[in-house]
Amino acid sequence: MSTWVTNAWYVAGWDSEVDHTPLARTICGVQIMLYRKLDRQVVAMRDACPHRLLPLSMGIREGDSIRCKYHGLKLGPDGVAQEMPLKTDRVNTRVCAETYVVAEKHRFVWLWVGDKALADESLIPDLWPCSTPGWTFDGGYYHVEADYRLMIDNLMDLTHETHVHSGSIGQPELMEAPLQTRVEGDRAYVARWMPGVDAPPFWRGALKQPGPVDRWQICEFLAPSSVMIDVGVAPVGAGATLESHDQGVRGMVVDCMTPESEGTMHYFWGMARSFDVDDPGFTARFKRAQGGVFSEDKEILEAQQRAIALNPDLKLNAYNIDEGGTRARQIIRRLIAAEEARA
Amino acid sequence: MSTWVTNAWYVAGWDSEVDHTPLARTICGVQIMLYRKLDRQVVAMRDACPHRLLPLSMGIREGDSIRCKYHGLKLGPDGVAQEMPLKTDRVNTRVCAETYVVAEKHRFVWLWVGDKALADESLIPDLWPCSTPGWTFDGGYYHVEADYRLMIDNLMDLTHETHVHSGSIGQPELMEAPLQTRVEGDRAYVARWMPGVDAPPFWRGALKQPGPVDRWQICEFLAPSSVMIDVGVAPVGAGATLESHDQGVRGMVVDCMTPESEGTMHYFWGMARSFDVDDPGFTARFKRAQGGVFSEDKEILEAQQRAIALNPDLKLNAYNIDEGGTRARQIIRRLIAAEEARA
Amino acid sequence: MSTWVTNAWYVAGWDSEVDHTPLARTICGVQIMLYRKLDRQVVAMRDACPHRLLPLSMGIREGDSIRCKYHGLKLGPDGVAQEMPLKTDRVNTRVCAETYVVAEKHRFVWLWVGDKALADESLIPDLWPCSTPGWTFDGGYYHVEADYRLMIDNLMDLTHETHVHSGSIGQPELMEAPLQTRVEGDRAYVARWMPGVDAPPFWRGALKQPGPVDRWQICEFLAPSSVMIDVGVAPVGAGATLESHDQGVRGMVVDCMTPESEGTMHYFWGMARSFDVDDPGFTARFKRAQGGVFSEDKEILEAQQRAIALNPDLKLNAYNIDEGGTRARQIIRRLIAAEEARA
Repeated sequence: MSTWVTNAWYVAGWDSEVDHTPLARTICGVQIMLYRKLDRQVVAMRDACPHRLLPLSMGIREGDSIRCKYHGLKLGPDGVAQEMPLKTDRVNTRVCAETYVVAEKHRFVWLWVGDKALADESLIPDLWPCSTPGWTFDGGYYHVEADYRLMIDNLMDLTHETHVHSGSIGQPELMEAPLQTRVEGDRAYVARWMPGVDAPPFWRGALKQPGPVDRWQICEFLAPSSVMIDVGVAPVGAGATLESHDQGVRGMVVDCMTPESEGTMHYFWGMARSFDVDDPGFTARFKRAQGGVFSEDKEILEAQQRAIALNPDLKLNAYNIDEGGTRARQIIRRLIAAEEARA
Repeated sequence: MSTWVTNAWYVAGWDSEVDHTPLARTICGVQIMLYRKLDRQVVAMRDACPHRLLPLSMGIREGDSIRCKYHGLKLGPDGVAQEMPLKTDRVNTRVCAETYVVAEKHRFVWLWVGDKALADESLIPDLWPCSTPGWTFDGGYYHVEADYRLMIDNLMDLTHETHVHSGSIGQPELMEAPLQTRVEGDRAYVARWMPGVDAPPFWRGALKQPGPVDRWQICEFLAPSSVMIDVGVAPVGAGATLESHDQGVRGMVVDCMTPESEGTMHYFWGMARSFDVDDPGFTARFKRAQGGVFSEDKEILEAQQRAIALNPDLKLNAYNIDEGGTRARQIIRRLIAAEEARA
Repeated sequence: MSTWVTNAWYVAGWDSEVDHTPLARTICGVQIMLYRKLDRQVVAMRDACPHRLLPLSMGIREGDSIRCKYHGLKLGPDGVAQEMPLKTDRVNTRVCAETYVVAEKHRFVWLWVGDKALADESLIPDLWPCSTPGWTFDGGYYHVEADYRLMIDNLMDLTHETHVHSGSIGQPELMEAPLQTRVEGDRAYVARWMPGVDAPPFWRGALKQPGPVDRWQICEFLAPSSVMIDVGVAPVGAGATLESHDQGVRGMVVDCMTPESEGTMHYFWGMARSFDVDDPGFTARFKRAQGGVFSEDKEILEAQQRAIALNPDLKLNAYNIDEGGTRARQIIRRLIAAEEARA
């Protein structure tokens, strides 16, 4: 059984990463390169020249086309040959590189690695805080040598903050608050409500006032491999609830995990927020801090991936705190099974 | 057939290496971590959290327990869960990490990787010079990318000193003296008696007097993988014999080889001596010099291991000088065969 | 099917590389070491001591013999034991390392890795410009992590110069001139005649006069894996033809590719010329420049080799410009098939 859904949108890169010069990135085991045309539309093409397989990403951009660095075969943005290595040769338009359907939304470039006929932009995970007026969003990228599902497990359980991130966002109440888990279609939720607690430093600074707060964390898994975490605090008595909580300060952690190979992933992380949205210095400082926190996760997950390989007689176990990750993995398995049943 | 005996004591570390903070070390293919409790007893535990397999050696020590760095599962020194990741969860004592029987003797921490019911401290190889009053002992550790049996071959044949260690302890007489080999149970011996020779610089300095000496080297293999080499010189006429030789200066090279994986080992080396035992400066200088000599062996063995892999059509051959190593390997094979017959 | 011919001469090294101290080099998957005797004859021997497999190239030269660094087994230049590790042991002359037939010609040391009975020096590829009076020849060596046939493909097609070497020897006419391909026995030729063109800077400097030139490139593959490229320019009207062209300035690129393993090669490159032969400063400057050009090929081929491995569903395709490489590969396949039919 495959470990990932094939007919799905995956983040191929940040909108800021894909530019005129080709970007090479392996998505779901396929070597792909991405670049922007003059009209800024993104082209995604198999990263191997149909002639002698040299990565096209090593090639030279000419207009909206790409010319292979080895023998100069020139391919259009549709992947079809426009000029043969020997200029005197007639162009053979059956010579072409596979192209992929892409879409740009929520500040990401999304790629559909499966059957093109099924690619439907309405299926792009709804990461609304990344593109809603009144919100600001930024983040970064890590290459992580671990199965992408380990990051989903990680993000759907925030008790690990206490131990992995003890220096920054951990808080003892995280381990004591009861969890509410539910599944809705291809989404899984884990919610935690912490009423009347002391705000940790980050949230105190965001709220800019003293006094006890109600704190929430709502992890939402969106198939095939995104997680959004609704986080924030509101002053006690302001009327915030788990369902409605715009009374205080609110952020959305947004993480997209794209399988690179069986044991490696591309990790796109960031945070959207609806407070202090016009303070780019704060945005930059927060991104730097968040990058530090997520590099702690990267270190843990890479150690976990090695441990899985080195201990083939042991298996991952799930406790109560893992229910969110368990639900997310069930959704992934269900989608893969349906896909394989169709094929 | 396995390449090592499983029901046997292996050195897991120097007594000085195992401390409050966990030490990760793979023994006979099993990822293990070791630490000391407050009473200094050593705990050895499978180095994978029973929850999500993160190495426990990355965890935090709490009292005599270990808390996993990922989700905070807390295990006692018996490997049994003492606290679940979510504090409100009832402790499930079936959640546990495998523990291993350990013993501390002759300045080493020994570990029994096989069937616990068979672990018997009286079976620990008798490295008596490491713990006998009137003797002093110290040494070091190398990780060597070679099969542990190649080091046994090396130590059971000292003619290689002439070539590998030509700059330090080599002496032409080593290649000319006749060898006496014998086997007693799980031990093999190779002895060499060099009467009336000139003492090499190290032994001259130890003896502190001029004149010809009788020199001896007695290599003793102790299953499953230790070698002691009784070395020294006595003035000619002092009455030293191969059987009894406390008339001059005497040392015991002590080497313990622990299989890490099929082609790698942990190499614990040192020297005990019964002369100048109250001169710690000499001990330190000698350890440094010995470390240099054994790093020459490490380099040779790692080249040999690579050559074995690169020349699959060639096999190791044994000449007369290899009889000690051949006998030791026969003992190892006999013990493995008996073990596999029982299983 | 093997990917290389076994009963054939391959370059093992430059004459300048093989000296008194052993040179370790893997040829067609076999670990070999080479050294010169006092009479400067080259010895080639399996690079593994028949005793415990340590590379003999780590050993000590004694006269024309080699003594293993581990236990001191001494082998003569015929590979036969001359002294056992224990000097008192009788020499067993069945103890020996395999030796290989070598020959020195055209400034290279050639090695026959197959059946010795078939080794015939008259079969050494005729790289005549490397050893003809009136010509001078020099070059260098690169280790390349790519199948040796990818370099043959590369050298039998010079249109790639336009793209890979755009900064130095590329010229647009290279892509427009018609190609003439032919096969003669174990040789394949691709010729290109460019009449009345402007000389590129290198050839202008060599010719030392202005005016349009006729330019030629004749790639010649010599089985099993050498390529010579006859290159040069002559003033228009001087009478140069594709068949006879000593009227201007003429060079011969000489490249020998020796398989190391399935996906790696030894690349010996150089250039012979019949102009300015007494200017060693020019020779040195040209060698440096040529090394830069060939390092661009190395980079391309290593990327191509990785791409072949990473895209197992794609295959190399051949267009018109690849006809020379295609012919060369056909010759190689025919020789391998004949060899395997005999065996």
